[in-house]
Amino acid sequence: MNRCLTEDWFLLPHELKLQRAHAKALAAAGILSSEETESVDRGLDRIAATYSGQPCPDSDAEDLHTWVEATLTELVGDAGKKIHTGRSRNDQVATLLKMYVIGAGEALSRDVRSLVEVSCKRARDWSALVFPLQTHAQYAAPGNVGFWVLRYATAFARVLSHVDFLVSHWRRTCPLGSGAVAGSSIPIDRQLQAEALGFEMPSLNALDSTCTRDECIELLALHAQTALHLQSFATDVIGFSQTSQSWTDYPEEFSTGSSMMPNKRNPDAMELVRGECSAVASAHAQAVLLMKGLPSGYNRDLQCIKPLVRESVEKMGAMCVLVCAFLERLEFDAVRMARSLSLGSIDATLRMEARVLQGVPLRDAHHAVAAELREAGDVPTDTQASAVDLYRTLGGAHPEETRRIADMLLAELGDRA
Amino acid sequence: MNRCLTEDWFLLPHELKLQRAHAKALAAAGILSSEETESVDRGLDRIAATYSGQPCPDSDAEDLHTWVEATLTELVGDAGKKIHTGRSRNDQVATLLKMYVIGAGEALSRDVRSLVEVSCKRARDWSALVFPLQTHAQYAAPGNVGFWVLRYATAFARVLSHVDFLVSHWRRTCPLGSGAVAGSSIPIDRQLQAEALGFEMPSLNALDSTCTRDECIELLALHAQTALHLQSFATDVIGFSQTSQSWTDYPEEFSTGSSMMPNKRNPDAMELVRGECSAVASAHAQAVLLMKGLPSGYNRDLQCIKPLVRESVEKMGAMCVLVCAFLERLEFDAVRMARSLSLGSIDATLRMEARVLQGVPLRDAHHAVAAELREAGDVPTDTQASAVDLYRTLGGAHPEETRRIADMLLAELGDRA
Amino acid sequence: MNRCLTEDWFLLPHELKLQRAHAKALAAAGILSSEETESVDRGLDRIAATYSGQPCPDSDAEDLHTWVEATLTELVGDAGKKIHTGRSRNDQVATLLKMYVIGAGEALSRDVRSLVEVSCKRARDWSALVFPLQTHAQYAAPGNVGFWVLRYATAFARVLSHVDFLVSHWRRTCPLGSGAVAGSSIPIDRQLQAEALGFEMPSLNALDSTCTRDECIELLALHAQTALHLQSFATDVIGFSQTSQSWTDYPEEFSTGSSMMPNKRNPDAMELVRGECSAVASAHAQAVLLMKGLPSGYNRDLQCIKPLVRESVEKMGAMCVLVCAFLERLEFDAVRMARSLSLGSIDATLRMEARVLQGVPLRDAHHAVAAELREAGDVPTDTQASAVDLYRTLGGAHPEETRRIADMLLAELGDRA
Amino acid sequence: MNRCLTEDWFLLPHELKLQRAHAKALAAAGILSSEETESVDRGLDRIAATYSGQPCPDSDAEDLHTWVEATLTELVGDAGKKIHTGRSRNDQVATLLKMYVIGAGEALSRDVRSLVEVSCKRARDWSALVFPLQTHAQYAAPGNVGFWVLRYATAFARVLSHVDFLVSHWRRTCPLGSGAVAGSSIPIDRQLQAEALGFEMPSLNALDSTCTRDECIELLALHAQTALHLQSFATDVIGFSQTSQSWTDYPEEFSTGSSMMPNKRNPDAMELVRGECSAVASAHAQAVLLMKGLPSGYNRDLQCIKPLVRESVEKMGAMCVLVCAFLERLEFDAVRMARSLSLGSIDATLRMEARVLQGVPLRDAHHAVAAELREAGDVPTDTQASAVDLYRTLGGAHPEETRRIADMLLAELGDRA
Repeated sequence: MNRCLTEDWFLLPHELKLQRAHAKALAAAGILSSEETESVDRGLDRIAATYSGQPCPDSDAEDLHTWVEATLTELVGDAGKKIHTGRSRNDQVATLLKMYVIGAGEALSRDVRSLVEVSCKRARDWSALVFPLQTHAQYAAPGNVGFWVLRYATAFARVLSHVDFLVSHWRRTCPLGSGAVAGSSIPIDRQLQAEALGFEMPSLNALDSTCTRDECIELLALHAQTALHLQSFATDVIGFSQTSQSWTDYPEEFSTGSSMMPNKRNPDAMELVRGECSAVASAHAQAVLLMKGLPSGYNRDLQCIKPLVRESVEKMGAMCVLVCAFLERLEFDAVRMARSLSLGSIDATLRMEARVLQGVPLRDAHHAVAAELREAGDVPTDTQASAVDLYRTLGGAHPEETRRIADMLLAELGDRA
Repeated sequence: MNRCLTEDWFLLPHELKLQRAHAKALAAAGILSSEETESVDRGLDRIAATYSGQPCPDSDAEDLHTWVEATLTELVGDAGKKIHTGRSRNDQVATLLKMYVIGAGEALSRDVRSLVEVSCKRARDWSALVFPLQTHAQYAAPGNVGFWVLRYATAFARVLSHVDFLVSHWRRTCPLGSGAVAGSSIPIDRQLQAEALGFEMPSLNALDSTCTRDECIELLALHAQTALHLQSFATDVIGFSQTSQSWTDYPEEFSTGSSMMPNKRNPDAMELVRGECSAVASAHAQAVLLMKGLPSGYNRDLQCIKPLVRESVEKMGAMCVLVCAFLERLEFDAVRMARSLSLGSIDATLRMEARVLQGVPLRDAHHAVAAELREAGDVPTDTQASAVDLYRTLGGAHPEETRRIADMLLAELGDRA
Repeated sequence: MNRCLTEDWFLLPHELKLQRAHAKALAAAGILSSEETESVDRGLDRIAATYSGQPCPDSDAEDLHTWVEATLTELVGDAGKKIHTGRSRNDQVATLLKMYVIGAGEALSRDVRSLVEVSCKRARDWSALVFPLQTHAQYAAPGNVGFWVLRYATAFARVLSHVDFLVSHWRRTCPLGSGAVAGSSIPIDRQLQAEALGFEMPSLNALDSTCTRDECIELLALHAQTALHLQSFATDVIGFSQTSQSWTDYPEEFSTGSSMMPNKRNPDAMELVRGECSAVASAHAQAVLLMKGLPSGYNRDLQCIKPLVRESVEKMGAMCVLVCAFLERLEFDAVRMARSLSLGSIDATLRMEARVLQGVPLRDAHHAVAAELREAGDVPTDTQASAVDLYRTLGGAHPEETRRIADMLLAELGDRA
Repeated sequence: MNRCLTEDWFLLPHELKLQRAHAKALAAAGILSSEETESVDRGLDRIAATYSGQPCPDSDAEDLHTWVEATLTELVGDAGKKIHTGRSRNDQVATLLKMYVIGAGEALSRDVRSLVEVSCKRARDWSALVFPLQTHAQYAAPGNVGFWVLRYATAFARVLSHVDFLVSHWRRTCPLGSGAVAGSSIPIDRQLQAEALGFEMPSLNALDSTCTRDECIELLALHAQTALHLQSFATDVIGFSQTSQSWTDYPEEFSTGSSMMPNKRNPDAMELVRGECSAVASAHAQAVLLMKGLPSGYNRDLQCIKPLVRESVEKMGAMCVLVCAFLERLEFDAVRMARSLSLGSIDATLRMEARVLQGVPLRDAHHAVAAELREAGDVPTDTQASAVDLYRTLGGAHPEETRRIADMLLAELGDRA
């Protein structure tokens, strides 16, 4: 149980990069001669050539760091025995995890950007499709389908801005060189290491660096938020697809049939998105539980955050890709949606506001229209799709406004790139 | 149960500010005459004068918004009946919550800044106090107490940077004017409203604005992270104070005695910090559970996020203030700490590195020192406090480095201000 | 912050009961004379008379136990100073919490029993109301509304059996007499105390008794499960009520209108049930986080479990009562439900099974009916309400079976009583 | 993504058992002839022989149930096409999961029983080892190490009683025969099926049976509770082992060294137990999040509970086994523990109680001893190991009482068996 080579194997690419940066710093500190440095580089090349992208080898090594050191020592002798100078597995693993999280943040940034793009594109496609918007799961007011999907474009644009901040936040300081807990008496040039690994500067406190996992916690919090938006999207689509509405042409490759009921096509993909998002959204709480109650300084409990982060990263990526693909293929049934406009007296607010524009105080107009509706009873109304043209507020459900905002968001994406 | 006036009463100051901004926009839109606008302003003045800072009045009103409208109508007549024009409680409550969260973010920023300040001050005070640093709850290497507390200064400085980003992120867009779900046909100037309430611009999508609670989720995630650091601090102090070490002069006003054991002074305040931090750190997961599975558009479930956020804000603030006060008063027992240096062979790494500096490969030096320790058996070592002067890495446990980093963090605080 | 009299005031009734039991045991041990015992009893009577059901008094007392001892000492002198003999606040608070949790378990038992009763009653009422059952939020097969509500009767009957087990499980051992951590050298008769407080016997290990909160964790887990069922019920009703189906006559006193949309009646009560259930369902995770990482022996962190449990108990009780009242008043629109039967080809399984009963292998019959449906396209079918009479399995959706199971569950309730 | 054969492969043994029970019921219903039934049995035999204990085969099958049906049909023809008569994957998977959870409950029962046994054994071994008990992480009173480990024996005995209740609770009703949601028109004998699969009777409501996962939630709640106890044990041992106490002879095979610090032996196994317990203890909250907001009737989200439960079961089992093995090997350092008795004035309560036994009111005796301690200052006391002989309460820290309780718990285990 104390062994974790297999579990950590996914960090190999980062580990090799770190070894090179460390070898360079050891050379600068006079610990490795230039011949030794070269031989280490060649050794790392051979390890990369043999093992990159391969399954984890059988080994007695306690962990990835030990395995690399042992393999290197086998290949290049004494220089390998020097490679661990001025560092500990504690700062090493903290650095690897930070590198991995930065990579995961960049991946999330790309994925979320794609979600914004495809949502904006579909918002334009669907801006003329009029249907009932809902509050409290009740038809509330006429809107357009593009306006609905813009909700997600807007949300993902916010996530994008947050994740981009965090990636630069994480890049500020590099843990490597913090040693086990207190640094080292070997004069390693930490600034050199930090830059070689893509950070701005060395971390400020060796104790903090070796036992904090803030970047993991922050990534998982952002995953949770992204997952909340994705499952909300899935919930909406499942709702739109339910039999009584059947607004969607739910793409067949994202559905499955029933083993007992010949009549069923079920929205399985969106249900799985909703379900997997629960796993992603729970990882943050699990990480908090893991960290709670630990004393300062590295504790082996921290090992358990690695599979947690890794699984969340992989599921998050898969969910984003799936939803993008789904959005590309999703279509709507304009006829059924138009038919739904007659339900729920959804033009009531617009009727009320027409009176307000004629000078009736809002509260009186509200009472008057409510009374009319009570009197009319539960009959279908003749709400026209053109009702949405009455909206006049920025960010509202007018089709033009939907297209304007979609274009604006896409332009912002371009500016960020 | 459907009523929530009492529950929402804490939002009154934001509500009044919102009403003024909305009245101004209604005037600009020609819905309120200039006389009506003035009377509304006077009515709001009277409500503020009568109710601000007071307990929630007895009332049948369904909620805060309805109560304000009714009270205003009582005071100023028809103008009150017009005040709800072009908006809904949905965009109103979303705006109030965002205003509250922004205020909470600013408060967290101040609190965390104080934590950085007092930690840096104590780091300077304690930089010459040498004691054993721990990993795996085992003595690991000599360090100084200032270096330990800098761990928290460093962590809180990171939180500060994140919260400052989020506050500006939240200030970007104002939900007001989104109406119930789709905006309105009344031509309200949302830009005017947004600026009057301290936002940059109106929000981009009315549906997103009325049913997203991203700023709550983000605040709670940051609370969770801050709480993790605070409980870690508490855990450390409780550990330092345990009988076998007794390193602290734990300030008496933060401890309590035992009803049965006359010998006990217990570190209650730090235990309560650790305990309360669990409540704060759980709020995020509770909010995620609350939001999960809801369809787009306002749902009344969202009411339940208000007490959750409010309690977290209040506990978080209290914890920060308590830990600041505690840090100001905490002292250490230099004699006991010095005595502890002889345990755990904590100079072993420095001895090993001395050999490395003489050319012995690290791995060989490690084996040699380990063998020496095995041979010597479990005897106390003569580790001098001056051993910490050997550290040469940036961010390491050398007293000078502790002071340098403390000064640097304080200077950065000054730059941010 | 170290004070918690107000927070603990809700435990006063249990505290007074405990004091009486303890006084009796002290008398039996010869610590209190018979006069002293009587005066203590009279003192407790006066405290009960003055303070029971009253708001928490202003006091400097550190906590409830200290306040009672001080108040008693004021009233009866030296006997009051003896009352804390052979015990500690640690075993006292563990006992009070266990007493409170047992009471809460009994209350949950009663509430859940009421839910079973009213669900069974409505199952009988609604057994002839035929409507589409759903899987994957798609119409799946004809069923009856009574069958749907029996889902909850069945689930709550399971909860009932579990809670009844737990109450008897909790009653087994009484923590009182465990002292601070190790018991006492005063020969208190713990068996006497245990029985006086309604337990079977004294607890087996003083350390476990003073720092375990298993009964709280178990209660909160059961709350979470009950809350899951209640929010599922709420989710179903909200779904049934949505505009496109409008199957419910949602009782007006459980709904609210919209401030902007004159057309809306929203299912607020069920949304609040769903929302509040999130708070209840989160309490377990919060308690786990609180307990995690604590060393054995009482720690003040445990103070924080009290408000958590208390709030969960109060919300849980309120939710159960609300849902019972709602169930009593809920009605359905038979006409709309019958109309829905024509959607989704919900008779397909029954048609397939008809062929199976004629000897066609199931898989072939499935393919044949699926092909028929594809050919027919998306047209309404003529599914009759009488289709449900074809069901022949136990626990299935035949109206007779619904009534049989409802009767059976009610009879079981009678047997348990 | 819609495919889940690999994910569900662990359920194969239960699936084959279910198929046999279903074939028997289909024969009784006249759907399968006796030849067909025999051929199905032989087909299942061949599938078992070929695939049991093997890795999941490559296949396009949507899931395990489909794969078995297809494989069977390949082997036995038309009888295979009939095997899915009168059932759905919905009731099938509900049944398999319940069977798996029952097995997991039985395994937990065995594991927890072993924990009680080894704890009681070590309680006897360690009853004469006297050391300081702690509250608030401060030395509080003399106790014995056996008394400490009995805390866990007691806790695990409670878990045992709860899990045994739950296993019988889960065995009550069998979901098979519930069909997709409403049962079936094929007259399957559900009682026969239920008994063949080890249940008492068929479930009462097909809708509940196909969409409830109560047994999963209940198992995960019990896992969380067990995990809390295990991590508490680990936390205690880590604390006992810390350098300033070094009470344990921590078994070497459960520790690891440091890559940088030659002096370190770290308690890695206990840290990993504490860490992995966080994963186990989080699974319940994740399951709650998964279930929240789903409408009644099977939803594909439920697929995601399977890996969650499976991982928790596997980790839980591994943790129990590890802690049992660790407990067998753990030893203590009697000399160091005895030395610790002189710290913290841990005889104060016993001194106070001596006065009480001479007639001094407890509160006065408390003040007097507290004053003595203050006057004496912070000097070591001469607390003898024999002090523990003064304890007189049941369940207290007297060595005899430790042995008595250990024997009693072991005898109870025998009675349950």
